Amino acid sequence: MPFTYYRTVRFQDTDAAGVVYFANVLGICHEAYEESLEASGIHLKEFFGNLSVAFPIVHASVDFLRPMFCGDKLTISLMPQKLGIDKFEINYEIVVADVMVSKAITRHVCIERNSRNRKELPELVIGWLEANRKDTENTERRKSREAI
Amino acid sequence: MPFTYYRTVRFQDTDAAGVVYFANVLGICHEAYEESLEASGIHLKEFFGNLSVAFPIVHASVDFLRPMFCGDKLTISLMPQKLGIDKFEINYEIVVADVMVSKAITRHVCIERNSRNRKELPELVIGWLEANRKDTENTERRKSREAI
Amino acid sequence: MPFTYYRTVRFQDTDAAGVVYFANVLGICHEAYEESLEASGIHLKEFFGNLSVAFPIVHASVDFLRPMFCGDKLTISLMPQKLGIDKFEINYEIVVADVMVSKAITRHVCIERNSRNRKELPELVIGWLEANRKDTENTERRKSREAI
Amino acid sequence: MPFTYYRTVRFQDTDAAGVVYFANVLGICHEAYEESLEASGIHLKEFFGNLSVAFPIVHASVDFLRPMFCGDKLTISLMPQKLGIDKFEINYEIVVADVMVSKAITRHVCIERNSRNRKELPELVIGWLEANRKDTENTERRKSREAI
Repeated sequence: MPFTYYRTVRFQDTDAAGVVYFANVLGICHEAYEESLEASGIHLKEFFGNLSVAFPIVHASVDFLRPMFCGDKLTISLMPQKLGIDKFEINYEIVVADVMVSKAITRHVCIERNSRNRKELPELVIGWLEANRKDTENTERRKSREAI
Repeated sequence: MPFTYYRTVRFQDTDAAGVVYFANVLGICHEAYEESLEASGIHLKEFFGNLSVAFPIVHASVDFLRPMFCGDKLTISLMPQKLGIDKFEINYEIVVADVMVSKAITRHVCIERNSRNRKELPELVIGWLEANRKDTENTERRKSREAI
Repeated sequence: MPFTYYRTVRFQDTDAAGVVYFANVLGICHEAYEESLEASGIHLKEFFGNLSVAFPIVHASVDFLRPMFCGDKLTISLMPQKLGIDKFEINYEIVVADVMVSKAITRHVCIERNSRNRKELPELVIGWLEANRKDTENTERRKSREAI
Repeated sequence: MPFTYYRTVRFQDTDAAGVVYFANVLGICHEAYEESLEASGIHLKEFFGNLSVAFPIVHASVDFLRPMFCGDKLTISLMPQKLGIDKFEINYEIVVADVMVSKAITRHVCIERNSRNRKELPELVIGWLEANRKDTENTERRKSREAI
């Protein structure tokens, strides 16, 4: 099973069109990423406040399939993947009542924070990637079996 | 016991000073208000998207006692109080690891949404106010007993 | 010349890494879109509060080339394009001191707001698309001439 | 004349009730503060990213007199005041089409950033306070004369 984060849509997430403001969906995905890091034993304050290493997002994309309303119960699944020695990508799927409402991707690189030079992903992050990769693969394998 | 809402500080809540951006604390309090309404059986989408009645905030204030950092586990207590036939106030206390970090107040009025004229609080909201008032009183009474 | 929007990076746009939070870049692009609509004579409150027609974003993507800091002076260029009778796309480029820091795309469809069925783009939006398209084409033509 | 900041209400500022989300009004006031600091020659990135001194907000309050809609043209006046050797307060008034829509206050203290101990306001901030105080006093004096 991929890592799953549960989140209620807040009034503050919405705009005058009555639905979640588009850019806020990426913020909700980032919350799932934070929750997943923490579930993997990573200390968030140290991770995001670290003065030597950072993991800035270099690319993000998001598809909006259906509107999300205040009070909606979101289920966000997160599937990260290593892309190289200094980068990784996360796929997100957001579901409301078994219906997919949005899909998103964030791509992250690892940098030395002051110089902003690329550096290798630290053990902590590789551990997180592997733990979640295996979970995702098991799901894929189970889905394949079920398809047969 | 007053209604309690648990919330992890998100990276998005913070600013370049490394702590939660001041105005976001009021947003977090509003989340506690939404959670409390829902716990009382109120349907959030209908409540906040209602075209005939609304409960705009006419006043808010907030005290910041200590900084909040990404990953901090917040416990937000909420104590609402009826102020008249068409208004109510909510007191919030935010605690991290048993230390009070912030206190806030929001004052709400009930209006007919199009005319924006004041109107009496509906049964739904009076029920929510009474349920939470009793809870708060019980706590006060218990605290008094404990003090003796 | 494509439509250009000037915007200072605000403290609120930043996060604990000291730079603009990734999802806020899309919000800044949307501000450029609003400013461009208004410059074209469109009344924003009516446009975004319209109860019969809406232009929800169905896809967005953004590339982050360099970090943006509090106080940075952003120049956002906006190049919209009609994609069909009921949809359009906007390309954005964000520059700080003549250096490209971010590129983004938003894709919008036109819907009847209650049914959420697709409908044709209204005259108002087609006028805005054509006004901005010509501006963009002139720039492209000038760039080609300069290249020769 | 007090320092004045002009700001259009953005779609992102609004919520599903169709008006500016209450906590965002404090964010808009903070933008006026940033703009005023910059107009006084203060470099925002250094000011807000400074690792030795910071000016956190310890109290904020806000009154909402009328709703603000997407596209509304806000005029925010800012009147700062020194409260002691290590603190200051800012009063804000927000006007739309000559009608007051909101009033707010933020109270700031000066701290050494790592220890979070109080320290005296630096020259830079005292200069900003005095420049804006005189401006405000002149307005008050003029208003008094006009009243006579």
